[in-house]
This record gives sequence, structure tokens and C-alpha cells, in this order.
Amino acid sequence: MVKVYGDLISGNCYKIKLLLELLSIEHEWVDIDILEGETQTPDFLAKNPNGKVPIVELSDGRILAESNAILCFFAQDSNYLPTDNYLKAKVLSWLFFEQYSHEPYIAVARYINLYLGLPDDRKAEYESKQEGGHKALKVIEDTLKQSAYLVGAKLTIADISLFAYTHVAHQGGFDLYDYPNIKNWIARIETTTGFISMDKAKSSH
Amino acid sequence: MVKVYGDLISGNCYKIKLLLELLSIEHEWVDIDILEGETQTPDFLAKNPNGKVPIVELSDGRILAESNAILCFFAQDSNYLPTDNYLKAKVLSWLFFEQYSHEPYIAVARYINLYLGLPDDRKAEYESKQEGGHKALKVIEDTLKQSAYLVGAKLTIADISLFAYTHVAHQGGFDLYDYPNIKNWIARIETTTGFISMDKAKSSH
Repeated sequence: MVKVYGDLISGNCYKIKLLLELLSIEHEWVDIDILEGETQTPDFLAKNPNGKVPIVELSDGRILAESNAILCFFAQDSNYLPTDNYLKAKVLSWLFFEQYSHEPYIAVARYINLYLGLPDDRKAEYESKQEGGHKALKVIEDTLKQSAYLVGAKLTIADISLFAYTHVAHQGGFDLYDYPNIKNWIARIETTTGFISMDKAKSSH
Repeated sequence: MVKVYGDLISGNCYKIKLLLELLSIEHEWVDIDILEGETQTPDFLAKNPNGKVPIVELSDGRILAESNAILCFFAQDSNYLPTDNYLKAKVLSWLFFEQYSHEPYIAVARYINLYLGLPDDRKAEYESKQEGGHKALKVIEDTLKQSAYLVGAKLTIADISLFAYTHVAHQGGFDLYDYPNIKNWIARIETTTGFISMDKAKSSH
């Protein structure tokens, strides 16, 4: 059976859990505690030299790292990844946007605030994340004015990936009040058949 | 004909040029001057609300953003993207690694040093990029001890993407002396049939 190594306080890990639930893919979840340094042990670094969760270990021992690459791996040949080359590239475009223009602001601000307790020596960094985070939210909001999901009328892994940290953006100080289309999109995803919340995913491990 | 909007001082733009040359894909290159603010004009923001190059405009007007998504789009059904689902996901894993763990250190340090002239008020930021950049280079170096290219024995868009900023890493203060496998890999890529250098790409526009 496929093993996923992850920590469900991380949106990058939760997005894998969410897709596996939506696809009803059986898996073993191996808890790795980021805050306890478990991504930096020799055993873990042997699996992922970059020292990050999530990773997936296939039944033959092969490893795959990077949350959005893992989403693509599992979504292949499913309804969550279009087969048309342009639409598939649009999905990928959102996945790269997520890692470069969204996660470094919203996820990092959330981490500093929620898990480190906003210590004095990280406050300037936390503040510096707000502008970039709102810029990313505005790009999402403007897209969702035009279509129900990020790439057209159907839920794809672009939505699953962006949902992970967007729906908890308030924990990084980002009020979604000014983003009504994002709020509707969150509600739409949360009522999808097979949806599992971050809290429920966490409490099940 | 497909149009590419880009600035060839940027490795993210150069990687598209390199792939298009390797694939002999005819295209029109539209120069966008980053340093002159041309990614922030209303016309450009209408094409990419995220205000970044490169973007591709297809002949029917559809737009695609994010350099690594563009690489996937053009590499589809070519030798530069495996068809096997796991190997394709491995390529994607390197592309996400590039945008999250490599580019924000090496490309940003290069930008501060080479294009901004290492001003005093960015020196601390420049210094702070060194550790992460070397960490990324070590991950690449260790992989290239095992195989000629990042995903096995054949050149893929993983190599093209990582090559773009790695081969000019010294411009960001990263000496490649301690990375002999990276240096060999750079030489291997530079002697590939159809290869175009960043300088030659720049001077042809």
C-alpha cells in the first residue's frame, strides 16, 4: 500500500489527504512531526534530502516529494486533472502560482502566527508577508468572479492545492471579508462529496 | 504563431527560449523589460494579473503563465517529458523544487547582485540567500552523482528548468567549485544539439 509521510498541521500535507479521500485511494498515513524536527532526522533525509513533508513512498519503495507533484501523480487519469494539454497546463500554472506567489506569504505568516506564537523577532517578517498574501488572494478572487473553479466549471487539483492554505488564511492574519468569491468557492469545495476537513484529517491521526 | 513575452535577463524566461530552440518550435519573442516596469503596465496585467514574465499567448489569444507550466505545455509528447506517470511526477517534483527551494535563493541573490548592484539596503537579504542556495545545490549535486540527468539518463525539462539559474549561480555569489557533478551536467547540457546560451538568446533580441 502507498505510504504518505506528512504532518496535518501543514496545508501542503493536508492537500494530499484531501485528494486521496476524494479519490477513495487507500493509503497508510505516517505522522511526521515538523515542530519536533522529524523532517531533519537521518532516516527522513534518506527519503527526502530536501527535508520536507509530504512525501509518498510507493509499495516498491520509490519516493516522490513535493506536494503539488504528488497531487499530479494521484490525479492522473481522474476527473481532477484535465486531459487537454492547455487545460492541464493551466492547472499546473495554478500549482506553480501556489508554491511561488501564495504559500511563501500565506502559509509562512500562518506558521509564524499559529505555531510559533508570533514571537517578537519574527514580527517584521510576519508583517512583510501581508502584502504578497493579499496580492495572491486578489488574483484568485478575480479568477473566481469568472468561473466556479480556478480552471473552468469543474473542481481540479488547482482548487485542492489553493484551498489548503486559503481556507485557513485567517490564521495568518488574512481576513477573507473582502473576497466574497473566495468564500463561496471555499463553501463549494467543503460541500463536495468525499470532502474531509483539515481538523477531521488531523483528529483521525 | 505562438508569442512568448519575456525578458532574457531572467532565467525563468530563458528556460522557455532554450526548450523552444531544442524543440525547433517557431515563435515570436516579445521583449518585456522587467527593470523598466513593463510587467506592471495595464496592458501586461490584463494578460497576466500576477504581473510576471514569461507568459505565452497562443494564436487564439489564450494565455499561459508560470515558466514551469509553460515548459510542461511545450514538452508534452516530446522526449523532454516522460510518459510514465511516476517519471513524469519526478520531473514535476524537480520543477516545484526549482520554484520553492532554488529560485527564491539563487535567482534572487543574482538579481540583487547583478541587476541592482548589491545596494547596502539589500545586503542582509543577499547574505541570507546563501545558505538556502547552497542547500539546493547540494540536493542537485547528490542526485547528479547517481545519474547523468536529474531524472535518469535522459535530458528532461527538469534539467532545462534547473539549468537556467544554476549555470549563472556565480552571478549570485554561488561558487560551483564544490559541485563537480553540477559542472559536468552544465557542460553536458551546453553541448546538446540545438542548445542556445543565455547570452546568445539575449543578443538575438
